[in-house]
Formats: sequence, structure tokens, C-alpha cells
Amino acid sequence: MRAAVLLLALLPAAAQTPWRDQGLLELKATPQARLHPVPVRAVTLQPGFLKSRQDVTIGKSIPTLLTLLEEHGTVDNFRRLAGNSSNTPRRGPLYTDSDLYKWIEGAAWSLNVQPDPKLEATIDKLTDVILAAQETSGYLNTWFVEDKAKLRFQQMVTGHELYCLGHMMQAGIAYYRTTGKRKLLDGSIRFADYLLRDFGPAPKQPLLTGHPELELALAELYRTTVDRRYLNLAAYLLSGVERERLKLRDRDIAYIFSGIPFTTRTQFEGHAVRALYAATGAADYWLETGDPAYRRTLDLLWNDLVSGKMFVTGGVGSRASGEAFGEPWELPNRQAYTESCAAIAGFLFNQRMLAGSGDAKYADAMERALYNGINSGMSSSGTLYCYRNPLATTEKDRIRNPWYDTCCCPPNLQRTFAALGGYFYSTSKEGLWVNFYDNSTLDWRLESGTPLKATLTTGQPWKGDVRITLSPSKQEEFTLFLRIPSWSLGTQVLVNGAPAPESPSPNTYLALRRAWKPGDTVSLTLDVASRIIHANPRVAEDYGKVALQRGPIVYALEQHDNPGASVFDVAIDPRTPIVAEFAPDLLGGVTVLKHQGLTYSSPLDQQPLYTFSQPKASKPVSITFVPYYTFHDRGPASMTVWVPVQ
Amino acid sequence: MRAAVLLLALLPAAAQTPWRDQGLLELKATPQARLHPVPVRAVTLQPGFLKSRQDVTIGKSIPTLLTLLEEHGTVDNFRRLAGNSSNTPRRGPLYTDSDLYKWIEGAAWSLNVQPDPKLEATIDKLTDVILAAQETSGYLNTWFVEDKAKLRFQQMVTGHELYCLGHMMQAGIAYYRTTGKRKLLDGSIRFADYLLRDFGPAPKQPLLTGHPELELALAELYRTTVDRRYLNLAAYLLSGVERERLKLRDRDIAYIFSGIPFTTRTQFEGHAVRALYAATGAADYWLETGDPAYRRTLDLLWNDLVSGKMFVTGGVGSRASGEAFGEPWELPNRQAYTESCAAIAGFLFNQRMLAGSGDAKYADAMERALYNGINSGMSSSGTLYCYRNPLATTEKDRIRNPWYDTCCCPPNLQRTFAALGGYFYSTSKEGLWVNFYDNSTLDWRLESGTPLKATLTTGQPWKGDVRITLSPSKQEEFTLFLRIPSWSLGTQVLVNGAPAPESPSPNTYLALRRAWKPGDTVSLTLDVASRIIHANPRVAEDYGKVALQRGPIVYALEQHDNPGASVFDVAIDPRTPIVAEFAPDLLGGVTVLKHQGLTYSSPLDQQPLYTFSQPKASKPVSITFVPYYTFHDRGPASMTVWVPVQ
Repeated sequence: MRAAVLLLALLPAAAQTPWRDQGLLELKATPQARLHPVPVRAVTLQPGFLKSRQDVTIGKSIPTLLTLLEEHGTVDNFRRLAGNSSNTPRRGPLYTDSDLYKWIEGAAWSLNVQPDPKLEATIDKLTDVILAAQETSGYLNTWFVEDKAKLRFQQMVTGHELYCLGHMMQAGIAYYRTTGKRKLLDGSIRFADYLLRDFGPAPKQPLLTGHPELELALAELYRTTVDRRYLNLAAYLLSGVERERLKLRDRDIAYIFSGIPFTTRTQFEGHAVRALYAATGAADYWLETGDPAYRRTLDLLWNDLVSGKMFVTGGVGSRASGEAFGEPWELPNRQAYTESCAAIAGFLFNQRMLAGSGDAKYADAMERALYNGINSGMSSSGTLYCYRNPLATTEKDRIRNPWYDTCCCPPNLQRTFAALGGYFYSTSKEGLWVNFYDNSTLDWRLESGTPLKATLTTGQPWKGDVRITLSPSKQEEFTLFLRIPSWSLGTQVLVNGAPAPESPSPNTYLALRRAWKPGDTVSLTLDVASRIIHANPRVAEDYGKVALQRGPIVYALEQHDNPGASVFDVAIDPRTPIVAEFAPDLLGGVTVLKHQGLTYSSPLDQQPLYTFSQPKASKPVSITFVPYYTFHDRGPASMTVWVPVQ
Repeated sequence: MRAAVLLLALLPAAAQTPWRDQGLLELKATPQARLHPVPVRAVTLQPGFLKSRQDVTIGKSIPTLLTLLEEHGTVDNFRRLAGNSSNTPRRGPLYTDSDLYKWIEGAAWSLNVQPDPKLEATIDKLTDVILAAQETSGYLNTWFVEDKAKLRFQQMVTGHELYCLGHMMQAGIAYYRTTGKRKLLDGSIRFADYLLRDFGPAPKQPLLTGHPELELALAELYRTTVDRRYLNLAAYLLSGVERERLKLRDRDIAYIFSGIPFTTRTQFEGHAVRALYAATGAADYWLETGDPAYRRTLDLLWNDLVSGKMFVTGGVGSRASGEAFGEPWELPNRQAYTESCAAIAGFLFNQRMLAGSGDAKYADAMERALYNGINSGMSSSGTLYCYRNPLATTEKDRIRNPWYDTCCCPPNLQRTFAALGGYFYSTSKEGLWVNFYDNSTLDWRLESGTPLKATLTTGQPWKGDVRITLSPSKQEEFTLFLRIPSWSLGTQVLVNGAPAPESPSPNTYLALRRAWKPGDTVSLTLDVASRIIHANPRVAEDYGKVALQRGPIVYALEQHDNPGASVFDVAIDPRTPIVAEFAPDLLGGVTVLKHQGLTYSSPLDQQPLYTFSQPKASKPVSITFVPYYTFHDRGPASMTVWVPVQ
């Protein structure tokens, strides 16, 4: 008890950060956080690429998904416990509570973008419904009730009790940071306090995140409440000391990515979402503690991820069996599992790593996922979602669907798109960081306290022009950190029309330090030349093939645009150019890539399986690539990201 | 009843074929059979490639596997039902009876090659053990007894009762054709008659081969007994009329490859062994009836198999999940399931198709499997078996094992190798067919009745020379059909030293018709040049890569022979030759292929996952290929069949 008091005494006054000033992560007092996210409300997306995704999320996806959650009993699962209708059976799999929590989190963030008293009233009502189902002990879960109450904390590997609590906590925090209302947050704290009372190292009862998620929620609860016990509970979960008491098998350990000390992990394996949430929570823990063993493990895992386990779309998870990581370079295109939630989990992991370092490589990985493997997860209509985001399909594959009984991905996509602005800008002691480029305005302040407005206008992702106007309330020296994406090999930067003193390198932040005065402008010209990407030859399915990327956008060949040949029967001809062309009427306005490719003299499905002479594509054929994220937006079709080069 | 009598009256006198003269298939009275196999005992393999496989099967594999079957309770499962030890529990999964039956079948065929009174006595004793467990009704299965007896014929999709009976029948037939002893055969007939009594179209109880196999066994029982009721039972099983009565789901239908009319199938899907046994049984049914709907379906399926679902090793079955076929061109190398039993089932399917046509393409598919994907299934020691035969492995993969609880593959390999000679030669009205080339002598007769001896000497598979000496007991005009393999692009044929009048084309039988007299010789020079095989570009993992084949042997790069670089880091340099070299001390004496290939300046596992410039292998490295079938024979190692071409 004394140690806890001491620790509290040493803490900076993070609790004083008003709720309105807290961002997606509240890192102002976090020792290892170099970057501090600005509040979601400080950034207003302006008409452009990502705002259109946010608009459809808020205008269409969030309201229609609540209707679907109601139709499938997700809310009634709470209502029936308040006594009104407990003779109706509970519906859906055991983790549906988390779907509603994630929906609330997305809806909460959306209020920062677009105040909506009716939506706010809905959240308040749902909060009452949820809390009416909470037991006086603090326990709350709609599955482990009645005859299943005796199974509480007995099915630690599969039970998802702590996973649901984690999402309740995150929803409560999001709504608190949006409105100042603590009701849902306090409900989650009551459950957390129940855990603190009865669970922990022996002689308390053992606890395990069978699906990691609570770790990061607890870190954020600690940042919100400045009560170190919540971080300590996360530390206990990450410490993996309960393997013996819980009789965990090797396969459990691999699958759930918890149950052994996080710091003994050397590679990603098992369930991709579990593993990446575990890493995200561990990164949060490292940010708070600076424990070097955690940092070493996080670096090992990050390198393992990007050197052999991440698809070119930022998607993650190679195997349907166990929704799992594969071995290094096991990146099959059609069989790729690449769950939307896994791409988001990778995005969140990189968000923490970026905050702890200011290293652009993490933002680059975030961008790859955001514009491609996450962006693909929701259709342009905002009503169809991908659970899987494979890199090749046939027209028989049904990838976009309005509903999944395991409804984890749709609200996860919503909470990401609704809060997008919160990822765009960060501050540090040195100044302002621009992480992603889309039309937006910032209304916030430097860490010195000086109010700062900024306006960013760009044609991104289709065009390379970016213009930033800075308006600090007074002239002040600080650094403007501009991320130079890895794909922008020839970036030009002008400050007030004159070449910048520093020359920009891809995959770094360009640091422009000077006394900035109101109205100063920075112009970037990002190099959005179409790029041909080669995979490491160890990736069995990508050998001899390339993917096309232009700016942050990864492209795919879809049958819709290619009447001349099957998309599986064409090859890129390195002697002819790839021509970018903006198609205003296609898919809401996208830049397509056109190319005079090659196809076979007769379709490959009429050719033998094995031959002594090499089949050669030699017949010219016009082919058109569209952004990968739009795949199947016009209905199922054959599609492939990786295309042979002849 | 009248129809049956009529049918019987129309039958030729197949029953008169003495047991000694019956081959692996007894097709002499089969209407659609153009080719008739010679008895197993009519062929004696002489020292050479395949005889070494047969020798180790008979000398080592068969005796050691019986010991293992005893150790794992497979025989005790029968003994305990004879009353001696029924308080010991049954052991192993529900299909272990079939393992013993298949072992008996292999042991029975081996007696044709090498008489062994002790082994024969063992089979007699085992027969008594088995039959002591048979109920007076005829029912026999060691799983569905005691408290499980009520489940008989209730678990038609998963139960394997009919599968076990099929193998009992085949074992009984093999032993009868070897020794004339009918005891085991008659036991299986009693069970078959029990089925005929109570099962069949309504109002009888419904029957389904949840694992097809009984179909082909019933066809052979019909050929052995000339009792058409057994063929009719096969017809009923193939007719797939019980879908509704058995409430079969779509996924069952796909997985078990039965339960709907066989003639409505258009592609191979589901469990590979089930599907290929079903097709084999259907081919048997077509051979007997000539039903054109069956022939159409068989042709469709065969084309489906060879045009997109067969590995270059003759292996079959792309997915571990469901041990199943994939979609067309879904042929992953490391993930390949390619169960030994599936390669054998494909071999048996092609055996029937060959008998019905005399088309060399079927023999070619048999050869591809026999020398590669089947041959790999048993180690040179005869004591390690592959369940899976993937086309790429790392050193972590444990593919060769002494025992599997699902012990289907080891005895399946044994029955194949033990009876090899029975596949080599066939007769038809026109004369003699030579299907496979290895050192052997034939002592049989033409269908005219003229006794015929033949001697074949060859250096196959390593050398192209084949010399056949024919010794009919008197001069007689007949056709000698010599299979010209698909890989022999430039074959030379001499008859008694003079060029043959017909010019040989790959993948056909060369028909040499003349009055043959004792001592006539035919010399073939097969073209065993090393061949580079390309896969259809639709095969995602093989694009830009090649496999090497020389004669019937498919090659692989194994790490054991390649210290210069990882086998996953090398490429073939098309500008340098591939040199065949016989290595007498390696792997029992094999021809290896040597090549000055290329590797990368730094190992690929130290290079990035994605790059903007193409990684090029440009550093010369000596690489050595060994026959695929020997993979892991020297212990686990990285191995790959498909190798990039730079």
C-alpha cells in the first residue's frame, strides 16, 4: 500500500488534463511518449478522401448498424437482465456485449466530428440499459448469467469476459472524453474494481485475457483516472504468471498470445487480433514504464511483423484456421484471412510505437493499413463490411456482407473512421507533427500553451500537392515535423515559397524548425509516381509478380474493368508505361492505372496444367487497375493485387 | 428377381476363371475392359529400381507394421470380441479394422512374389481372429459393439462401417487369388449378404458410403463370385438416392463425395481419398455396365483432376482442412496435403480408366504418382511413412513417421508395392501391353491361349535403354503395345535390331503388330533428357518457377546437398546446363541433377519484405537436385520441388 502511495506521489498531474483535452490516447504525462495525440475534436476533416469515409460512417454506417444490433438481440441481451424480459433467451455468441460497446465508442467519437443530440440521447439510453444489467458487485456480462453464472472466470481461454470489459472501458472513456459524462466509464470502473478485489497473483483468483484487449483499456483507464492500480492490473495480465494455475496448454499459449510473460515472446503467432492487441497493450505498458525488456520484445515483434507477416495492403493474418498468423513469408493472396480487426489492431500497435519514438516507419505502416486493408473493410455505401480482406478473389467469393454474427469488424471500422482526425496530428515539446495528409483544419495549441490553428489542403491520395498554413496566435519558434512517406522518393518542400533548408528523405519526419508566424505556409509536393512493388522472393505466391502502388494507395485488377481477359490471365509488360488517370465517375472518383499489358493467346483455363515449354503472355491487352480498397464495391468479381511481370 | 436371373443368364462364364489366373482386377468378362491385368504372380520383378521398393516392403515394412498394429491394439480389438479379453477397452479410432485388412491384403499379394509359409500361417491365424469377432448375422466391426452397437448404420457419414467392410472384402479377394483360401472372403460375403437383406432402397434401411471404398470392393466381389447382386449394391451406393432419408447436408455431400447421384458430379471436391475412391468405384461400375452417363462423368472428373488439381508429383489433395481438394490451380507446395492414400486412390482410378481405354494418358498419370508421390510415402528403410507428401518443407517439418494413429497410409503403400508386377503388363484380344518399364519377367499367355514368356531389362528410371525379349511358345501374330511415356520426346524403337515400322509418339501406346516368334527382341531407347516443367501460370505458387523431371522421376532441391545457400534462396540460370550424374553411394544409388544456379548477394531472410526494385539472384552457386521421393530420407531438411528461374 505504501509503494502505491509513493508511486502516486511521483506522478505528474495528468489527472488535471480536462476531459475535453484528452485525445484518443491521453499521453501527456506518459514518460516514454514523445508524441501526444491532439483531441479528436481539435481536427476537422474537410471535404476530401478520408472525410468521405468519415461521412458515410457517421451518416450511414453507425445508424444502420445499431438497427442491426437491435434486430440481432445485442441490446436485448442487456434489457432482459433488467427484469423486463428475462424469459426471452439471450441471442448471439458469447462476445456480443463488446459489439455494442464498440458501437458506442464509434458513436461517441463521431459526436466530436458532428454534434448530434439525438445520437447522444441514444447513447445515454443505451448506457442506462447496459448499467441496469450490471450486478451490485460490479460484474457485468450478458452471457455468464443464470445457469452460466457458475462458469464466470472458469473459461478463461474462450470466455471473452475481460475482452468485453475492455471494450466497455474504451467506450466509457471515449464518451467521457467527448461529453464529460462518466456514467458508462464509472460502470466499467466498478467492474475493474471488482477484479482488483478478488483477482490477481495467488492467493487471489487467477486472471487471464483469453482474448487480449483489456490490457490497453486498463492502460487508458490509468491515464484517465491516474489510479496506478489499473496499470498494475495490466502488468499482471501481461506478466503471464498464471500458466500453471490455469493449466494452459502450449496451443492455448500460442493461440491467445497471453498466459506466458509477454517479454518472452519472439514472434507473432496464433490469433492475429489477439496477438496484435496484446502487443498494443504491451506497448502502452512500455510507454508508461519504459521497461527495457518490453521495448526489446516490441521491437522484435514489430520486425517480425513487417519483415514477413504483413500483406502489402497492411492486412495481417494468413490463415483461416485459427484466424492466425502464418510462418514468415506465408502470405497467400486468395486464402489470406486478413480480418479487418487485425488490420486495425496492427494500426493501433503502430500508433503506440509511433507515439513512443516519432519514427516515421510506424506511421508508414499505419498509412498502409488505413488506406488499404482497413479502408477496404467498409463499402462505399457504409452498409457492407468485410470480415476478411483477401488479396485475390474469384467472382464466387462473397466478401462484403451487411451482417456477421461475429460482429466485431463493423463497429471496429466505425470507431476508426469516426475518430480519424485524432490520428492526424500530434504535439511534442518540440512542436507539431503532421502524420497523415488529407484536407483538414486543426484548432489546438502548442505544448508551450500558444494557441495554434493550421489548415491543410491537398489532393491526396490522388495528387502530391499538400499546402499547410500555420496560424499560431503569435510568432513562436517550434518544429514542424512533416512525415515524408516511404513511397515519396522525390519530395519537394517549400516554406513560404522558398526551398526548405532540410532535404526530405522518404520514411522520415522532416523537421522544420523556425520561428513560425501566423500565415506561414509550407508546400509539399509528394512524389505520387506509380510504383512497382516486389515482394521478397520467399513469398511463394508473389514471385515473379508485382503489386502497384501510387501514393498510399495499393491497386488491384478487378474483372469489372477488364473485359479483355481474365485478371488471372494477364501480365504486366515492363516495356510499356503505367498511366494514372483520374476517373471522376468511377467509385466516387478514383485514380485508375492504365497499362498495355499482355495476355495469353488462349485463356489459361483452357491450357494444360504442366508443360515442357513456358507459357508466354504475348498478346497485348489493355488493363485497368483500381484502388484495392474498392474491391467488390461494384459486386463480386475476380480480383488480384499481385500480377505477373512478363 | 426375374430380372436378376435374366442378367445372370447373359453373363459370360467369368466364374470359370481359376483363382490363380485372376489379377489385381478380374476383368476378363468385363464388357468395357479393353485391357486385362495379368495375375500378380505372372510377373517377377528382377533386381532394379522398383524391386528394391518391393523387397523392402516385403522384407521390412510388412513384418514391422504388424508388430506396430499389435502394439496399438488393432488386432486385440478383434480378439476382445471373441470373449477372451473383452474387459480390455477397444483402442484407436473407429476405422482401425481397415488397417488390419489392408495389411492382410498387402501381405497376401506379397506371397505371390515371395512364398512364405510362416506369413501365410499368420494370415490364417489373423483370419480366425477376425472371423471369431463376426456376429452370426454377418455383421462385423470392432467399434460398433457393446454400448455403441445401437449406433450401427446410424452414423453413416462418419461411421466407416462400410469402408472397413470394403477393405475386408479386398483382403479376402487378394488372399483367395493368392492361395485359393476363401475363409476371409466368405466372411466378407456374409457381411455383404447381411447388407443385401436389410439395406437398400425403401422400404429397406438406407445405406451410404460415408467414406467410399465399398463400391470398388463390391465390383471386385461381383467379378469374383459372378453374383450380380453385389454389383447392384454398388450401383445403389453410387446412385446417391438416400440424401433425403439420411438428411445429408450440402457440406456432407461435398465432403464425402457420395449421397447424390455420382453422375451429377462435375468436379472433384471434398475429401480427396473419398472422392477418388468413389470415382474408382464408379469406373468399375462403368467397366461392367458401359453406362454412358458414368463415362461422361468419369471423363469430366478426370479432366478436372489433371487440368488443375494434381501436383506434379502425382500427389492429390491441396488442403489440410478436410484433407480436401482445392479449387482448380489451388496447388500450394508447403501446405499441400497430398496424402499417400490420395495418390494411391488416384493411381487406382487411372488403373480402371486405362483398362477401359488403352489410352496411355492414364498410364502416364499412374507412372507420375507411382515413381513420385506414392514412392515418397515410404522411406528407404521401409519403416517410416508419410501421411502428407508436400512439395516443400522446412527442416522443422516432421513428415516421415513410424506410426500414425490413423494408420491408413502405411498398409496402403504396402499393398501397392507388394503387388507392383500386377500393374506392369496387360493382355487384350490384340496382344500384350507393356505399361511400365522395370526389370521383370513375365510368364503368362496370350488371350489366344498361347503361352508367352517375356523378359524386360532396363536401366530405368535412370537410363533410357529397354530391351524386351518375347518368347511365345510358338510363332503367332499379335500386337505388342509399348507405352511411350509423355516425357520421352525422342524415342527410338528397334525390332530385332531394325527400326520399327511405326514411329513412336509420346503419351501413346506404340502398336507393333507382327508374327512374333520365340526370341524376338524389341529395343527401346527412351529419351531421359532432363526436362524443365512449367506449371500453368494460374498456379499461384509456381509462377516463374520450374520443376525438373528426368524420365519418370521428379526432382527436388534438398538442403542436405546444398550447403551454398538456402534452397529457398536459389534460382535456376537458364544459360547453364543441367547435368545428370549417377551417384552410386547416395540414397541407394540415384541420378542427381547438377546445375550452376544463382543465389542472392545476401540471404533473403535478411532482406525486406517489400521493395521498389526487383531482388535479383546473381551470385553463382552450385546446386544439386535429388529425386523428390527421397525427401527427408536423410532426416528433416528444407526441400522444394519448384525453383525460380531467373
